[in-house]
Amino acid sequence: MKDKDYMDRAFSLAKKGQNATGSNPMVGAVLVRNNKIIGEGYHESFGGPHAEVNAITNAESKGRKVSGSTLYVTLEPCSHKDKKTPPCTDLLIKKKIKQVIFGSIDPNPKVNGNSIQILKKNKIRTKYLDNELKNFKINRGFEKLITSKLPFVTLKICMSLDGMIFDLNSKNNSIGDSDQLRHSNALRKDFESILIGVGTVLVDDPKLTYRGKQVITQPRPIILDSNLRTPIDSNIVKLRNKPLILTKKEPKNRKFKLLDSSGCNLVSMKELTPKKVLRQIGKANIKKVLIEGGGKVFTSFLSSNLWDELVIYYSPKFLGNSGMLLTEQLNKNYLIKDRKCTTKKIGESIMLVFT
Amino acid sequence: MKDKDYMDRAFSLAKKGQNATGSNPMVGAVLVRNNKIIGEGYHESFGGPHAEVNAITNAESKGRKVSGSTLYVTLEPCSHKDKKTPPCTDLLIKKKIKQVIFGSIDPNPKVNGNSIQILKKNKIRTKYLDNELKNFKINRGFEKLITSKLPFVTLKICMSLDGMIFDLNSKNNSIGDSDQLRHSNALRKDFESILIGVGTVLVDDPKLTYRGKQVITQPRPIILDSNLRTPIDSNIVKLRNKPLILTKKEPKNRKFKLLDSSGCNLVSMKELTPKKVLRQIGKANIKKVLIEGGGKVFTSFLSSNLWDELVIYYSPKFLGNSGMLLTEQLNKNYLIKDRKCTTKKIGESIMLVFT
Repeated sequence: MKDKDYMDRAFSLAKKGQNATGSNPMVGAVLVRNNKIIGEGYHESFGGPHAEVNAITNAESKGRKVSGSTLYVTLEPCSHKDKKTPPCTDLLIKKKIKQVIFGSIDPNPKVNGNSIQILKKNKIRTKYLDNELKNFKINRGFEKLITSKLPFVTLKICMSLDGMIFDLNSKNNSIGDSDQLRHSNALRKDFESILIGVGTVLVDDPKLTYRGKQVITQPRPIILDSNLRTPIDSNIVKLRNKPLILTKKEPKNRKFKLLDSSGCNLVSMKELTPKKVLRQIGKANIKKVLIEGGGKVFTSFLSSNLWDELVIYYSPKFLGNSGMLLTEQLNKNYLIKDRKCTTKKIGESIMLVFT
Repeated sequence: MKDKDYMDRAFSLAKKGQNATGSNPMVGAVLVRNNKIIGEGYHESFGGPHAEVNAITNAESKGRKVSGSTLYVTLEPCSHKDKKTPPCTDLLIKKKIKQVIFGSIDPNPKVNGNSIQILKKNKIRTKYLDNELKNFKINRGFEKLITSKLPFVTLKICMSLDGMIFDLNSKNNSIGDSDQLRHSNALRKDFESILIGVGTVLVDDPKLTYRGKQVITQPRPIILDSNLRTPIDSNIVKLRNKPLILTKKEPKNRKFKLLDSSGCNLVSMKELTPKKVLRQIGKANIKKVLIEGGGKVFTSFLSSNLWDELVIYYSPKFLGNSGMLLTEQLNKNYLIKDRKCTTKKIGESIMLVFT
């Protein structure tokens, strides 16, 4: 096996941490000696041991000698100290790792190349195998959260060709067909959280779960609910994966206490503006949020311009007066500026993605 | 040069008849002797001499001997008699053409392979060089008009992403940018006629001309104008290319007489339903119509399902309450069924084409 193969393996391991690492990045590591893998690990949970630590522990648990081995790791190891876990560089030095081959440079300004210098000074050989794009794809939001304290935001909507989000004549009011719904549901697996307004809770009583075949940590629901109208017996409250509810009500409020005691995580805020909401989500160590609507939530986040990605599914129909308009509550033009757009057919629907 | 090259030349000639052949197809012909082109021709105008005739006349006018030569023609020559011009097969036999190489079979049930049989019986060699697709592209509408008596219909619209066709806050209310407008204007050159409602005449006072570099026969304007509200001093009436106006008013009406005397072609109809309108356009020997709106005309033709092609330009903006909705007057769902959809970026806009 070649360097590239070991690095690919490390990336496969990294992805196992999907939605479980909170504000931490997904990282994978492989320990190799005499061209054989002797240990593997990945960052499994927010605040938990890093991929490097898990790979070394894994090797040692099988009685393998780690000194003199080569470590393949998707992201530059950490070296800073003001955090939950000790610096990985210290461990690598202590364990006499011979060489560290890393796939990307940590964008965290506290690291950002520093660890490589530390390793070099300690006679550990280093090699940079540029996998920045691959790392960016799995860790979108990590850099943004570190630098701006805001999560990566994807807005998603399904409309008729004439901009309607509800078909008032159809059974469940939905616009998309099964292909569209499947595709749209699969988007969820790449998000740590899904945000909706309380209106959607009241109308649809959704669970917001990913229903595909892949085994993942389910995204965490976030509800914008100024007046705490979320029913205590709604599906989203009954989930094991308790929602984060952002509200204007205060902790002394009766419904606040009720929802709190049923396990929901409530945060009392003065205003629920997009910026303040996203800051709060960043504070909750969530680096990626999928905004699923409804129309009011969609348009407020759209026109805040605080989104990173906009996914529109157009279903091939016109609803006119039998539909409900997405932008019913948009009172000002919103122009999409300086974004790329790609298109894709999803069954009968057409998907537009602005980034 | 090879067969293919001569046939390509014949197709180039055919295209010169763009928008000028009415219900007739565009056809090109090349006469070849000893591997040299001795004559060329195309069908230049509705009811005028056919391409074959023009190619032979062209050769003879230069003193070239046509007997024994090979004719390349984009469409099977005609052989039926109940029409403005005599059968081309007769001429080819009389002129002792040695071989006829044709690019497509005439879909007209009165021809449809019959001519080939006639030529064979008269000892003229024939060869079929399959260019059906190429012929279909330049003569879309020809087959439809012959078989259904209705023209080929393209619906065109430019919208914001939320289905608005007017920006009430912009200077000229238009949605598209210059790239979109240029592309959309270029569509016109492939149409013999452009249909609009009188509302568009009153609001925009358009000329409906193609403004690109190519020299073409301009499409003919068609106005749906139940009550003859078209102003006598509107651009469209002042054009040299006089509009066809379909109206509910009768010839004795004062405005009818006024528009008629200014050169417009008025047709009095009991009802202006999409089907009746299209039948009338077919009767006027027009095989291709581009419907440019406004919203009311668009939605009525859309939901009639009598369209062959639907072109939507989405401009990357949301207008909400500052826009006017395309489907304001659509009172019933319209689902696009069994159509293909392709997408293309046009500058900042996204074009969807359903066929």
